[in-house]
This record gives sequence, C-alpha cells and structure tokens, in this order.
Amino acid sequence: MENISNVFITDCKQSHYLKPLRIHYTQNGKQKIWDVMKVHNSVAVLVYNVSRDVLVFVKQFRPAVYYCSVQKEVSRDDGRETIDTGKFPASHGITYELCAGIIDKDMSFQETAQAEVLEECGYKVPLEKFQRITSFRAGVGTTGALQELYYVEVTDDERVGKGGGIMEEGELIDVVEVPVDQGKNLLMDETIQKPAAFLFALMWFYENIRKASK
Amino acid sequence: MENISNVFITDCKQSHYLKPLRIHYTQNGKQKIWDVMKVHNSVAVLVYNVSRDVLVFVKQFRPAVYYCSVQKEVSRDDGRETIDTGKFPASHGITYELCAGIIDKDMSFQETAQAEVLEECGYKVPLEKFQRITSFRAGVGTTGALQELYYVEVTDDERVGKGGGIMEEGELIDVVEVPVDQGKNLLMDETIQKPAAFLFALMWFYENIRKASK
Repeated sequence: MENISNVFITDCKQSHYLKPLRIHYTQNGKQKIWDVMKVHNSVAVLVYNVSRDVLVFVKQFRPAVYYCSVQKEVSRDDGRETIDTGKFPASHGITYELCAGIIDKDMSFQETAQAEVLEECGYKVPLEKFQRITSFRAGVGTTGALQELYYVEVTDDERVGKGGGIMEEGELIDVVEVPVDQGKNLLMDETIQKPAAFLFALMWFYENIRKASK
Repeated sequence: MENISNVFITDCKQSHYLKPLRIHYTQNGKQKIWDVMKVHNSVAVLVYNVSRDVLVFVKQFRPAVYYCSVQKEVSRDDGRETIDTGKFPASHGITYELCAGIIDKDMSFQETAQAEVLEECGYKVPLEKFQRITSFRAGVGTTGALQELYYVEVTDDERVGKGGGIMEEGELIDVVEVPVDQGKNLLMDETIQKPAAFLFALMWFYENIRKASK
C-alpha cells in the first residue's frame, strides 16, 4: 500500500467525480452565492470483534490527505507540480478510518454498512446486528452530505474473507486490529491521521460499550 | 438568518473557491489518478463560559447542507434547478457548529482560534487560555485538510461584543448558549444538524472537563 511513486499534480478542468455547483439564494434580502460540491451520503461502521476483543479499522493511502500534508513541499516545473516521494513518503497520506462507504446504489444505509463490512473487513454479518448510533454532516462548507454511524459486534466465525476493498475499483485497504485496551490511546495520538468521525466513534465506544461491560 | 428565498442552482464552470486538482500517482506499480479539492487547514474551538455554566456554539445557514438535505426535491425547469423554500424552509440547512475558521492569513492555529472566538462569539480572550486538544483530518476523500481542535474557558467579563461573524464577508452567525447540564442531549439529537467534530468535542468535554470538575 505504501509503495507510492511518480506523484504529480495537474489542473482538473473537468472531473468525473467532482462537480462544483453554484447555489444562488437570498438571505435577509441580500443576494448571495455559495459554491458547493455534490457528494454522496455515506455510512461508517465501528466494528468490534468480540472473539478477540479488538476494534477493527481500515487503513489506506488517501491522495487528498497526502497532498494537504506535503503541499508546501511541492515543486513547480514545466507547469506541473511534482512531489518527491523519496523525501515525503506515502506515510504522510496514510489514514486510519472506520469501515465506510457511500450510498450510491439502491441500498439503505444499514444495507450499505453490511456490504462494506464484508468488502473492506471480510465479515459476513446479519443485517439486524448493525446498531445505528447517530448521524452527522460529513462536511458543512463545500459539501453537506449526511453520514450515518453504525456499530456492529462481529466474531471470528463471521470472517469469511480477507477484506481489503474491491480490487477492480482500485481499492487497496488494509484491515487493522487494535486491542480494546489500547484503542483509547489512538484518540490523542497525532502520529496517526484520522477523520473526526473516527474520534467520535471511539469515544462513544469507551463511554457506552466498554464502560458498560466492565 | 432563516429568511431564505429564491434558491436556485446552476452549474459552476469556474469557481473562485473550489479548485479541483488531479493527483497522478503510481501505487504498487499501478498508475492511478484521484481528483481532490484544495482547501485550507482550519481550527475549531470548544468555548465554555464558566460565568454562567454554558457551552457556546455558533449556528448558521449552510447552503451545502441545505442542498444535500433537499436535493431530491429539486425541480428542474428551463435548464436550472430550483428549490421551493415554502415547502423546504431554511431550517433544513441550519447547523450547530463549534466556533471555527480557516487558516488563510499569516497566523498560527492558536492565533486564528483567538481571532475567531472574538469575531464569531464576541469574547476577547488571552492567547494562553487556548488549550490544544488534538487534530484530525476534516476530510479524507476529496479534501484532506487538517483541523486543529482547541478548548477555551471564557467569562462574561471577557465578552466585548456580540459576535456574529464579519458582516462585510457576508457572515451571518448566531451565537447559541447551551447549559452544560443539557449539552449532552445534543449528541444524539438528530433534529440538530452538526459536523462530526462537534460531536467529538462535546464527548471530550463531558469526559475530561465536566467529569473532572464534579
């Protein structure tokens, strides 16, 4: 996963994935515009393997995180930006995340949660085991999509594959297991990059699940 | 703030604010591309008014959240999308957030936190009172910017203005005070829209500050 090379950045006149839209509106009599990105709603799942008392996360290389981490070091030459991966290795773009996925098929949030836990982590788990925690906005400035958060307890018997994402879609994901007695250390460990939802889910777990079971 | 009308959406061929970039890279010998948005790093601050035992948040209309909430109801006519604000009032786009701001001037995260607490909430607070909690990624897919999270205790004596953001920049922000004994209810109250960082900061407060002081 961390074998990254030949990184360069170009303008992107038209993206198949990112489509800016302009919202025009009148607020208190004043005309305004705001540019937004249309993105999909999504689901994230906190996975707890009760057989071995480990939390199950996913780890991957995120180009956007890598670029933000090293953008001051970008060198411009011949009209394109390049990044020296010798000096700035892929680790700058590696994140720890909850198992997650976008809602882009005709499936509910809960069904998507089930599918992602199978694809990314390799556990085949009945739908009714997925417990909805809450929802929030994955962004509020340029994107405003909803993310629903689920919790699921899995067992070793439910592991039917290695996970890792869908190769054909270019996904390259490592499954990471963190013993429950060490998970709380992740909260303030800034050597590991993670989204805010990861932090919230982890706190929720230690407040509601781990504390309750002690 | 909630007086919103004349909402319509157009394509946005070139945005001053949103600039898609294409990252080209080779991962495990396979060439890939990923489109990202260049965005600023930012800071968010959990503000606790100890004089009256209230948490201080900001509330605003977020066009991206509004659009995501109602996009299934958009009607297409004459090549443009319109939203009926009679049927779908501004409340669909109102969020509760931590006081926050982007790092776009020659100021540190902590200095930006200080400036935002004054601009948005009206409290003039010495720099050394801002306590850094941790940092995380505000996005991992299309954006990957860093957000640093701070905590500050303020008093009524430090309130020198009404806050509300900078009018000239079009900001229209309400300051919201939530009594500490009611704040925990916000966590699972999905009638109030908020980002994941808001949820994490709130849990952190009740785990580390409120519990400790009892």
